[in-house]
Amino acid sequence: MNFTEKLIVAPGRKIDVRDIDPSEDFGWGKKNLDRLVERNTRGLMEYQYKIYAENRQSLLLVFQAMDAGGKDGTINHVLYAMNPQGCRSHSFKVPTKEEAEHDFLWRYHKVAPSAGEVVIFNRSHYESVLVEKVHGFVSPKEVKKRYGLINDFEKTLLSNRTTILKFFLHISKEEQLKRFKDRLDDKRKHWKISESDYTEREYWDDYMKAFNGLLNHCSTKHAPWFVIPSNNKEFRNLAVSEIILDAMKHMKPALPETTADLNRIRKLYYPRAAKKE
Amino acid sequence: MNFTEKLIVAPGRKIDVRDIDPSEDFGWGKKNLDRLVERNTRGLMEYQYKIYAENRQSLLLVFQAMDAGGKDGTINHVLYAMNPQGCRSHSFKVPTKEEAEHDFLWRYHKVAPSAGEVVIFNRSHYESVLVEKVHGFVSPKEVKKRYGLINDFEKTLLSNRTTILKFFLHISKEEQLKRFKDRLDDKRKHWKISESDYTEREYWDDYMKAFNGLLNHCSTKHAPWFVIPSNNKEFRNLAVSEIILDAMKHMKPALPETTADLNRIRKLYYPRAAKKE
Repeated sequence: MNFTEKLIVAPGRKIDVRDIDPSEDFGWGKKNLDRLVERNTRGLMEYQYKIYAENRQSLLLVFQAMDAGGKDGTINHVLYAMNPQGCRSHSFKVPTKEEAEHDFLWRYHKVAPSAGEVVIFNRSHYESVLVEKVHGFVSPKEVKKRYGLINDFEKTLLSNRTTILKFFLHISKEEQLKRFKDRLDDKRKHWKISESDYTEREYWDDYMKAFNGLLNHCSTKHAPWFVIPSNNKEFRNLAVSEIILDAMKHMKPALPETTADLNRIRKLYYPRAAKKE
Repeated sequence: MNFTEKLIVAPGRKIDVRDIDPSEDFGWGKKNLDRLVERNTRGLMEYQYKIYAENRQSLLLVFQAMDAGGKDGTINHVLYAMNPQGCRSHSFKVPTKEEAEHDFLWRYHKVAPSAGEVVIFNRSHYESVLVEKVHGFVSPKEVKKRYGLINDFEKTLLSNRTTILKFFLHISKEEQLKRFKDRLDDKRKHWKISESDYTEREYWDDYMKAFNGLLNHCSTKHAPWFVIPSNNKEFRNLAVSEIILDAMKHMKPALPETTADLNRIRKLYYPRAAKKE
């Protein structure tokens, strides 16, 4: 199965995430998926090395989801093996005063990938058309304007050879409640719990509509959105790892040519080995 | 064996790295060391999670070595499993114009760890008393002054609860030549080769003296240096992983207490489960 083609939000096509079953796994079930993810992980490591060495292109991975949707889990399971050299992950907290005094894209632009890097956004500039829209901090008119500015921003990143992949990890409202329960049942996760996790659930449908908005306006050829059915974590990990690996292959990163005179070095510093040849 | 005690440069004691055998492995040989490193890696992941969750302390890992000394290899093998969330790695290239126009610590301070982070310096502020000293870019008097400023800088980081560990990966001159040969023999590594790698070897003894200087002046109680015999890569990985794990344990990171009323949440959102109890 070609996960990229299957799960992409085709630019120009209108979708409604409420039509997409978060439990869909296209018959993959749970069997052996971890082994496939593991194999993909080795591919990701291999390609990350090449991207890093090539030092010419970069990759930006955007993760958005409802709370407990699996952003942390995906980053842990799929991207843990990324070499921290050349890979950065950013989560974005309440804006600082300085950040709030700039345009809404400023703080994201500051940490955009430079050549050779893989950068992960755990939540992203899309929060500005999600939580801010849902809670009415911005007008519908402003939201529409932001879609355009976001597309322009991503085009700017592309101009520096940044490949952008955006993942919406799609879970059901029931699945969220179940996962919240897991946190309640696991002492090690109690620190993550706040009552607002639960009250925010009242806005579920508004969030889905906000996701529809950004998916339908901001899935572009060069910075596509993917809707990943994520009730099944193993399927989610497989899908995300397949899509990233696929994109890395398309980037065709190449190890740089050497500028050194290797034969001269061989003769000068390894005379005996050179003679043997 | 307590690697921390064995390999630390005891503050105040004068050492000469030329007295330390880079092939020393204290009888560990090569047997099964990878499995021990693997086990330590799981410990590192566990503690990194706690440091991240606690969001109060941080860890700075400094790696210095001669070229081919194994900085990249150690980071790959020991720290690959660090979750990119909460772990950053920095290597430092030729200073930009802006960086060069500041004091010699400015660009390092900018990327120092914030609460909850593990930060890796692949080369570091110590280059300012290494390559710059060896090539006479700074006077001996200035070098001495820098030792003091570096110690002050590290004390400042400590004041924000940053634990600092500094590793000198110690290889022999012959081992370096051998490793350079491996690069020559591996097409995938040709891009890393430059002739200056070889000409720089003429300064080997000056570098060792420069290392002596910084080890003897900048190994402090709260930011100690470790000399890791590194001709044997497996031993090196084991030693580094042991020392980091040891330090993380000493940090005693604790998961934060929850501020939510968990019983209220249980009753409100999981009435059936709550009844059963």
